Amino acid sequence: MSIEGVVYKGPNQVAIEDVNDPEIQHPNDVIVDVSSTCICGSDLHMYEGRTAAEEGIVFGHEAMGTIAEVGDGVSSLAVGDRISIPFNVACGHCKNCEEGKTGFCLNVNPSGGVPAGGAYGYVGMGPFQGGQAERMRVPYADFNALKLPQGSEHEDDFAMLADIFPTGWHGTELADLQPGESVAIFGAGPVGLMAAYSAKLKGASEIYVVDRVQSRLDLAEQHCEATAINFEDGNPVEMIQDEHGGMVNKGVDAVGYQSIEPDKARESDEPYDPTKENPGVLINQLIRVVEPKGRLGIVGLYVPEDPGAPETISEMEAQGRLGIDFGKLFEKGQGLATGQCDVKSYNRYLRDLIMAGRAEPSFVVSHREPLSNAPEMYEKFDDREEGVTKVILEP
Amino acid sequence: MSIEGVVYKGPNQVAIEDVNDPEIQHPNDVIVDVSSTCICGSDLHMYEGRTAAEEGIVFGHEAMGTIAEVGDGVSSLAVGDRISIPFNVACGHCKNCEEGKTGFCLNVNPSGGVPAGGAYGYVGMGPFQGGQAERMRVPYADFNALKLPQGSEHEDDFAMLADIFPTGWHGTELADLQPGESVAIFGAGPVGLMAAYSAKLKGASEIYVVDRVQSRLDLAEQHCEATAINFEDGNPVEMIQDEHGGMVNKGVDAVGYQSIEPDKARESDEPYDPTKENPGVLINQLIRVVEPKGRLGIVGLYVPEDPGAPETISEMEAQGRLGIDFGKLFEKGQGLATGQCDVKSYNRYLRDLIMAGRAEPSFVVSHREPLSNAPEMYEKFDDREEGVTKVILEP
Amino acid sequence: MSIEGVVYKGPNQVAIEDVNDPEIQHPNDVIVDVSSTCICGSDLHMYEGRTAAEEGIVFGHEAMGTIAEVGDGVSSLAVGDRISIPFNVACGHCKNCEEGKTGFCLNVNPSGGVPAGGAYGYVGMGPFQGGQAERMRVPYADFNALKLPQGSEHEDDFAMLADIFPTGWHGTELADLQPGESVAIFGAGPVGLMAAYSAKLKGASEIYVVDRVQSRLDLAEQHCEATAINFEDGNPVEMIQDEHGGMVNKGVDAVGYQSIEPDKARESDEPYDPTKENPGVLINQLIRVVEPKGRLGIVGLYVPEDPGAPETISEMEAQGRLGIDFGKLFEKGQGLATGQCDVKSYNRYLRDLIMAGRAEPSFVVSHREPLSNAPEMYEKFDDREEGVTKVILEP
Amino acid sequence: MSIEGVVYKGPNQVAIEDVNDPEIQHPNDVIVDVSSTCICGSDLHMYEGRTAAEEGIVFGHEAMGTIAEVGDGVSSLAVGDRISIPFNVACGHCKNCEEGKTGFCLNVNPSGGVPAGGAYGYVGMGPFQGGQAERMRVPYADFNALKLPQGSEHEDDFAMLADIFPTGWHGTELADLQPGESVAIFGAGPVGLMAAYSAKLKGASEIYVVDRVQSRLDLAEQHCEATAINFEDGNPVEMIQDEHGGMVNKGVDAVGYQSIEPDKARESDEPYDPTKENPGVLINQLIRVVEPKGRLGIVGLYVPEDPGAPETISEMEAQGRLGIDFGKLFEKGQGLATGQCDVKSYNRYLRDLIMAGRAEPSFVVSHREPLSNAPEMYEKFDDREEGVTKVILEP
Repeated sequence: MSIEGVVYKGPNQVAIEDVNDPEIQHPNDVIVDVSSTCICGSDLHMYEGRTAAEEGIVFGHEAMGTIAEVGDGVSSLAVGDRISIPFNVACGHCKNCEEGKTGFCLNVNPSGGVPAGGAYGYVGMGPFQGGQAERMRVPYADFNALKLPQGSEHEDDFAMLADIFPTGWHGTELADLQPGESVAIFGAGPVGLMAAYSAKLKGASEIYVVDRVQSRLDLAEQHCEATAINFEDGNPVEMIQDEHGGMVNKGVDAVGYQSIEPDKARESDEPYDPTKENPGVLINQLIRVVEPKGRLGIVGLYVPEDPGAPETISEMEAQGRLGIDFGKLFEKGQGLATGQCDVKSYNRYLRDLIMAGRAEPSFVVSHREPLSNAPEMYEKFDDREEGVTKVILEP
Repeated sequence: MSIEGVVYKGPNQVAIEDVNDPEIQHPNDVIVDVSSTCICGSDLHMYEGRTAAEEGIVFGHEAMGTIAEVGDGVSSLAVGDRISIPFNVACGHCKNCEEGKTGFCLNVNPSGGVPAGGAYGYVGMGPFQGGQAERMRVPYADFNALKLPQGSEHEDDFAMLADIFPTGWHGTELADLQPGESVAIFGAGPVGLMAAYSAKLKGASEIYVVDRVQSRLDLAEQHCEATAINFEDGNPVEMIQDEHGGMVNKGVDAVGYQSIEPDKARESDEPYDPTKENPGVLINQLIRVVEPKGRLGIVGLYVPEDPGAPETISEMEAQGRLGIDFGKLFEKGQGLATGQCDVKSYNRYLRDLIMAGRAEPSFVVSHREPLSNAPEMYEKFDDREEGVTKVILEP
Repeated sequence: MSIEGVVYKGPNQVAIEDVNDPEIQHPNDVIVDVSSTCICGSDLHMYEGRTAAEEGIVFGHEAMGTIAEVGDGVSSLAVGDRISIPFNVACGHCKNCEEGKTGFCLNVNPSGGVPAGGAYGYVGMGPFQGGQAERMRVPYADFNALKLPQGSEHEDDFAMLADIFPTGWHGTELADLQPGESVAIFGAGPVGLMAAYSAKLKGASEIYVVDRVQSRLDLAEQHCEATAINFEDGNPVEMIQDEHGGMVNKGVDAVGYQSIEPDKARESDEPYDPTKENPGVLINQLIRVVEPKGRLGIVGLYVPEDPGAPETISEMEAQGRLGIDFGKLFEKGQGLATGQCDVKSYNRYLRDLIMAGRAEPSFVVSHREPLSNAPEMYEKFDDREEGVTKVILEP
Repeated sequence: MSIEGVVYKGPNQVAIEDVNDPEIQHPNDVIVDVSSTCICGSDLHMYEGRTAAEEGIVFGHEAMGTIAEVGDGVSSLAVGDRISIPFNVACGHCKNCEEGKTGFCLNVNPSGGVPAGGAYGYVGMGPFQGGQAERMRVPYADFNALKLPQGSEHEDDFAMLADIFPTGWHGTELADLQPGESVAIFGAGPVGLMAAYSAKLKGASEIYVVDRVQSRLDLAEQHCEATAINFEDGNPVEMIQDEHGGMVNKGVDAVGYQSIEPDKARESDEPYDPTKENPGVLINQLIRVVEPKGRLGIVGLYVPEDPGAPETISEMEAQGRLGIDFGKLFEKGQGLATGQCDVKSYNRYLRDLIMAGRAEPSFVVSHREPLSNAPEMYEKFDDREEGVTKVILEP
């Protein structure tokens, strides 16, 4: 038996192909008919060939749908239930899962727990077939599934619950953002926008969002009450300080190791190369723009190995060792926290905000397309084509 | 009028000289007759000429004594009161002081609050004459003084309250160490020993202390129930993991930018140079030895400028930009927090532990000497002479 | 020298009279020209003669204005500065002030710190002349004053910073209200409305506000996105559960010991006496309507002595011993936290929300009147006359 | 098939009888051969006939042992594993379990989740056969079991992990006890002793333990560094304040609704009846002895219905409505938290403290007896016979 899914075919290539129709493998599994499944920025790392992902992997870790089959041990779910599936696969009973650190489950990754944590359709994160497909298997389903109200209401909003809404929220949590505080968020991609939106929902007083894609900055202004900082117009640290009248309370990095570095170029009057990656630049900008004793939340991805790094990246950087202004960080008594999101820590409450009509994270969704259009949409999304913010695929 | 004090005379030189006898300058000041005043590891940074400190500065930020004079505005202190004086000078009414961040007071540093925070007798930390002298002025005294019981009981223990006991404790707080957890502490100097002692007092289950001075490691075993890890015997990360059976919950850096790097030498089979500084090595060892989602508390000093850096340090490192394994840190979802201690956050409770007979931090004190012996004691302490752990000077 | 102020003349009587023109008494004092000063619900306890307040006391603890005089020890304030004055008088250097518990200062109350804490113009809270007057003295001014931007912008909003906006916020903090959670708030007086408004600002998912004055419930719906529960229409516990589909996450009591008890009457089919006080009823309703492990924030006033208690109150209740459903509370594993607000914990951030245009707490203000109208306004406010929500007096 | 177990036969009567040999009922179950199982103070509530417990119930919720059988869905446990079994039965995937509130699981109690939570062998806490038997069934075993090292080392210490060590610890957590703080603990039964022991492990500065059984107070002094307060010698509130020099920071109630009231008798000079219950007295004593803004942790049991209440208890009290000094509580700005322990929040770390040799909670164990001696031991324990502190039964 087979179903259709999005299959990686090598750098910059995906195809719709027949893949294994998932079956119950363990009494705590369920099988889900996928109704919505998104392309994530982190899929692009694999798509671009900058990971160890091999051909044949089925992509997709942002899925939701309806339960089609239920294992014998499942006790709180039934066929027909509509659920959101966090991108993390988590066992529910290791030390980390019990303490809410479900992004770092010690059991699901067969590699001996290094790295900790599992995910669907992702290289190095365990053997879990991806969700950009008609059906998917969800292990430890009682623990991993989040029940949604029946029907199709809020489908696009709920589709954000598998990853980016919680991940953006996580950024503000890692930064310990409190109501009334000011925050600088670097990156206005889907995660950055969700971080800005989270900051607004939590009652931040001032929200600065830094990017250079104007359409994304516009979304930040329209939906997140944010002040847009276009770093093609100048040094973002200075622009924020000028606008705010000093340093901000907290900062969020929603970009990661592929960050680019306009301001150094500007300082040196050299011609501006906006595409040159500088993996540590953003952390150092955050250290400067955040006040003493402030906190930085790092949800943009950093990797210990970057096999496909461009030549402009040093060997040390390609192994994840970055030049961090640690002396400055210490002098300011700052702290930082990092890592992928523990989706289950937030998704229940974010769902409730959606159901209560107080959150509509789907403002980031620019496209809803049939699954069969995946190859085209990957290409557009990877090109950061104007107006392509977030793509939902519909099997 | 003049009093005797310890005066910096240039690299590796201090002298006992006549210095200004402090006077009440503001209604909230008090003048203190100093009874005990310690030499701190951070004094050595100035002593060794690795800071911008100029000749003539009076050293000393770890002092206690008896109030000799009281300003008109002081309301809770009287002549004759015995007090401990936190090394931080803090105003008590700026945003940071009000929130307990007294190490980062926004008012006391005349340099416009960069860096935030003030201290006695320390370069760049404001115009506050040091406490290695017969008398000293304490500004905002109602806020800064901690009252002690009259008499001379616990004098050596209380002398630890101005800096190193709270600073060691701060390391465990920054690492978010909880009862029952395991912790690795790098450095068994006075601050490292106080961190280990704090970990014991808080109910840590396993405490690993890393150093290469055996007499200091012995103190850690005898007074802190710690397991000593001598990094001249091997790679400390591996030694801890072998001993513990895996990664520890939390980590503390009580060394800072002058950390040295034996294990890389060992890996390469090159001859071992135990004095070669490698300012980032310790952070990266902590990232490896601490479990996913663990926290690192960094109280060892890191500086944004190291004017007297040895030649083996790169220019970038001398500006405080260190090679940090950020990819690994992120993959493990770790966090870290840094900075000098906010003494007032802890000193009241640590005093109570001393008074109740539950804490005796003076186990680190190896010498109590007359103030006049300061030049000799600076020399011995700077040489890390065997058996010289902590020196109290008595004016 | 004298100024005009609102003076208590015995039960249900206040008058505008000449009172002492305050002077600098201590180097840390400032004198303020009052620009706005509000009548508070807690003033009514004294006004109604239900406290030990004696004739001659000058009322008023919700004031703001411009600094007219500055003591010698004051270092961060200058003549002409516009400030908000928290209702708490706090020294800034006792254990409680240092830990942010400024409502429970151990020094300012000359009664030996029982009760802890001080306030302007309030019986039993120290010798601090009230702020319903042309001028007032502010002790420990560096610590107590909150600077506002010069001019007159946001005057009505800022007037809420002395007490009710922070107090409402405090209710949600004591209840540990988190974003995405549901909350039941009992009382739609000024404090209850501010609690509901705070819940909205913090990102609560569902907010239920219970009262029986329709105009106040309307404000809750219009400005706080709350669901109004009029307890004249039924048992509020059942109404909330019906509306919400179960128990809520958290609860706030913004009424206190003068709460009234319609539902018991209803249960018994006895004729309904909506004015009969039942000081414990609200706590017990909260215990029922909040989920297991939920938290209750109690900011409505409870008193250990109620000298003017109505006859329907038992002697035990008049001494503050109330019948609390402790067995139920325990079975549900709930917790509760109580007490007057520590204004300084919040006012800085609430000011920033006002300045950023994200909070407009002045929606509760129904009247701005000259100080001379105080007698009339006290009468109307005490009658809970329809449309009289919050009164600002202008000296 | 049948095994032997302790069966309730009516007030003050238990017998050893044949009971059902448990079987795997669900893929996530395991069956355990019980090696140690304790009598708990809360068993006595049923034993004395003060609950709705019916004849035939098998007692026991403090058990440990070796896994004999494993369900198909169990993934982290194997036959032969030695485990501790928390007294709470918890599903691991409801909102409360996911948030660590495992004492208030929403799924395991078939009564519709009122009350929330389940337990073995306890009236009203679900259909889970008790552990004072040769074998027992553990549902959701991956989640509920805590693995112990193989063998028999620390058997008595580990036997404390199912309930009283975590429950005592929970008392100090609910009171938010911090290192360096002082605490008053009412009750020196097994839970009170474990609370005092936890306070010592956490670094409390002063620990006061109140009881009237001298042998228990002696244990508190010998093993917990506590100051004993025998309330037959005077009013415990005054005795603690005299000893401490004022109010303490935090308080723990380890007695509950069956507390007795010597001090009122003393105040009134009436003849002293030390056995007269006064269910609210202890809470009110805690309110008085704890400082303003202090916190009370209530782990002593309070019940919403007390069917077998003595005649001296009022009808209102028998329904769990107690006279609490709420006016005083509010004036002091205190908070309190209540409820049975969420064992899984602590047992992993307490186990590690035992394994590291830093905790030996078995100092409370006075008897280890064969299961067949249960009837005699229940009688002695219920009589609070001198020297009978904690009884372990060995099947």
